[in-house]
Amino acid sequence: MGNPGGSVKAARADGRPAASGIGDALFWGSLFQGLDRRGPFLQLQIRQLICTAIEEGRLALGVRMPSSRELATLLEVSRNTVVIAYEQLVDQNFLISRERSGFFVAGLPKHLGTQRDDRAAPDEAGAARWAGRFAVRPSANRNIVKPLNWQDYPYPFIFGQFDPSLFPTNDWRESARAALSVPEINNWARDLIDEDDPALIEQLRLQVLPRRGVRARPDEIMMTIGAQHALYLIARLFVKQGTRVGMEDPGYPDARNIFGMQSDNIVPLAVDGEGMVPDANFESCDLAYVTAGHQCPTTVAMPEQRRLEVLRKAEESDIILIEDDYESELISEGPALPPLMSLDRNDRVLYVGSLSKALAPGLRLGYVAAPAPVIRELRALRRLMLRHPPLNNQRVAALFIGLGHYRSHLQRVSRVLLERARILDQLLPKHLAGCDFVRGVGSTSYWVTCPAACDATELATAALAEGVVIEPGDVFSMTKGTHANCFRLGFSSIRNDRIEPGIERLGRIIARMS
Amino acid sequence: MGNPGGSVKAARADGRPAASGIGDALFWGSLFQGLDRRGPFLQLQIRQLICTAIEEGRLALGVRMPSSRELATLLEVSRNTVVIAYEQLVDQNFLISRERSGFFVAGLPKHLGTQRDDRAAPDEAGAARWAGRFAVRPSANRNIVKPLNWQDYPYPFIFGQFDPSLFPTNDWRESARAALSVPEINNWARDLIDEDDPALIEQLRLQVLPRRGVRARPDEIMMTIGAQHALYLIARLFVKQGTRVGMEDPGYPDARNIFGMQSDNIVPLAVDGEGMVPDANFESCDLAYVTAGHQCPTTVAMPEQRRLEVLRKAEESDIILIEDDYESELISEGPALPPLMSLDRNDRVLYVGSLSKALAPGLRLGYVAAPAPVIRELRALRRLMLRHPPLNNQRVAALFIGLGHYRSHLQRVSRVLLERARILDQLLPKHLAGCDFVRGVGSTSYWVTCPAACDATELATAALAEGVVIEPGDVFSMTKGTHANCFRLGFSSIRNDRIEPGIERLGRIIARMS
Repeated sequence: MGNPGGSVKAARADGRPAASGIGDALFWGSLFQGLDRRGPFLQLQIRQLICTAIEEGRLALGVRMPSSRELATLLEVSRNTVVIAYEQLVDQNFLISRERSGFFVAGLPKHLGTQRDDRAAPDEAGAARWAGRFAVRPSANRNIVKPLNWQDYPYPFIFGQFDPSLFPTNDWRESARAALSVPEINNWARDLIDEDDPALIEQLRLQVLPRRGVRARPDEIMMTIGAQHALYLIARLFVKQGTRVGMEDPGYPDARNIFGMQSDNIVPLAVDGEGMVPDANFESCDLAYVTAGHQCPTTVAMPEQRRLEVLRKAEESDIILIEDDYESELISEGPALPPLMSLDRNDRVLYVGSLSKALAPGLRLGYVAAPAPVIRELRALRRLMLRHPPLNNQRVAALFIGLGHYRSHLQRVSRVLLERARILDQLLPKHLAGCDFVRGVGSTSYWVTCPAACDATELATAALAEGVVIEPGDVFSMTKGTHANCFRLGFSSIRNDRIEPGIERLGRIIARMS
Repeated sequence: MGNPGGSVKAARADGRPAASGIGDALFWGSLFQGLDRRGPFLQLQIRQLICTAIEEGRLALGVRMPSSRELATLLEVSRNTVVIAYEQLVDQNFLISRERSGFFVAGLPKHLGTQRDDRAAPDEAGAARWAGRFAVRPSANRNIVKPLNWQDYPYPFIFGQFDPSLFPTNDWRESARAALSVPEINNWARDLIDEDDPALIEQLRLQVLPRRGVRARPDEIMMTIGAQHALYLIARLFVKQGTRVGMEDPGYPDARNIFGMQSDNIVPLAVDGEGMVPDANFESCDLAYVTAGHQCPTTVAMPEQRRLEVLRKAEESDIILIEDDYESELISEGPALPPLMSLDRNDRVLYVGSLSKALAPGLRLGYVAAPAPVIRELRALRRLMLRHPPLNNQRVAALFIGLGHYRSHLQRVSRVLLERARILDQLLPKHLAGCDFVRGVGSTSYWVTCPAACDATELATAALAEGVVIEPGDVFSMTKGTHANCFRLGFSSIRNDRIEPGIERLGRIIARMS
């Protein structure tokens, strides 16, 4: 443990607090300034701040800590909280306790020396040098841009993001805690190479997919890191340079970017009031990406007749269909239409879905249901890419669904989202009178078409300045500049009482700009 | 809620238990046969079994459940456990409670019909049809094959897998529970698009990378789904058809497969007693994959002189180095050598690491440290592929490291693994007398060369039959058939008391086969 006495002198020389007492209240105050007294787990927070300060060298070997009474007073926490924190830090050898003298910072094993310290930030020359080495430039993609801090805006009409008021906190906690038992840890801690948690596959088969009208055997399902990962894997497995991939236009930009990275032959597919149009362009494709449930971004649900026509033409032209059923389940409203996958009798649909939208995008829980020979190759590819999605999350999700929480949760989500849709159905004609708006049955967003003179990108910027978040439409179009007067208005993350003032504001801004 | 009375008759007709009592103890016994009485959370288990039976239709609408007393007796659990389970199921509308009559199965919302039920398993024709559509065939790769149930064998000399006896159960639980507070959920539930949890990046920078001799700014670090995902991203970003990628031979098969999927120009790099040899082959490469810390699979640590030579030649020939430091930190043994990344003054090293080996492979926590312009493109690529690794796990890991648990954990792991190495150092010369064995300083496995006549694949099969798991060496070679008499002997997952009997058996089998 070194020589605390000697080191304390060194600490003193550094201007750090002396061993003779709490010394510099200013120092300790600044060390603990990150403490969130209203936050949970105060004792953990204190430990974390001390550990971090020791690792950073802000608390040097031998420094005497304030007594538990002194620190409790300084931080306005109970003394017991500090006592427990100190005891734990002694157990971990961050601190040593010396009878009648108090607690001192213990020695840490030396880090390896490094030659890379204090390097300059990268310069333009460095960036240019790397640019010459990249085989692809994913950063050059056109993407949906949402402010990362959208939760800080009062009127977030944003699509597919987390709503804290809808998260099933207690039920998720129960499942997460159950997954921390020793037998469960032994289940999820392992490397399953190319497999998934069989319990989650079983729950998907039993409780999730049937609700969406899809029935699949265990060897026809694979978990992914969100639905997007499923699209990426499918693109990598099926698409090479020259493969003709049909993309709805307007359509989901991430999917377009994913397939565009594999092939330059991206074929725009027309979209009308019934969704994707199976015309000659469609018939020329090898694969086609279809959002039959709700066309992204126009929200329309493809009628059953159109679905059957798409399937018939796909069979005639031997097209593989990728069905992205990205927001099925969230709203139960009217008779549900069967997905392409369940209507198909020729095993040519790869079905992509997600639990992220219903639960939390941060969890990244997606899946793909497809014929077994496809799943077999997708598993081999996923094994190569990252083995499998984290198994602890798979097990928590399996418990959550298996305990019936998913079912109850969806009922609640549907109720709340339908209420929001009813509010908007009333408000939109009133406040956005000059606009056209569509919301397909069961969709969690509206597709709004402003008067032609209104540029939705400018509108979104102006709206953001007044606290209203909307998503301008042009990024959904393959040709930049079309759908410039359209935007997506989502309501899955906005509080009911914020809807009316938000729409009022938005209406005023549109009126001003039109 | 329908008409339970009427439905009960239907249930009766199905041979299901009647409403008049517990009826068929055999039926209820079989329904709950999955119950693990020694397992944790009995109440949760009971709820899960009932939910599942209802979803599967094995418990039909209106069926009367056994009374809590009857079920408690049948399952040999406390009555209170059943009472709580029933109450929760009533809250969730799986059951309804009717005064003085008991608990009945409630109606479930109808699933969508499906046309895909009861399909036949895929036939050869179906598989052949798909085979014609795949752009790549990842399932054709040669891979390391480990029995998935290796934990069932008494002598698992397996590499890099989970050891339940080393997992920091309580400390992980503390961190995981802290991440379930409402403010923490709000942190991790979000979609961060292309970012990571800043708290985890900070802890890596502060506590993990310095211990490995690497210092990096926040914009030089990105999280991945295990180290393998980092390799995949790097391969996709830098390698196209024709790019010359140097791979150590023998080397890590997964890395070889990953780079081989992007380019046919995989250049074998010689390996000697000091690791990868920077010869003319190396100098011809655009990129090279190097395991300087411990050459995979020969375990040798590259001496500092060789490291400097590799860096010098990489600079002369403008080669990008991918340093896979896959088992740094696990064993502290002798003076640690600085990684290539920390010796490099020309920003040409991409450093790949993982927390999976120290904690649990099932968590899939890897990372890459690289110059900022590279991280920027890797983030854009990862965003396209899957956005980001699940944020709840990132936050738990940040708390685990921030609370000092990672540091304490590594100290314990190192102590235990060193003890196993000491035992093996004594046993191997005695029981594997005809073999040559190498273990680089700090490595968690030995590379064993048997007498030339001994085929290690046959040996592994024979050993497995006697409960001993080893990993035959030929899969590490680019040319099938070389290193046929070598195998990897890992000790990160075997109990100390199993080492001697396991090595004794292995020695007998080798003697028999040589």
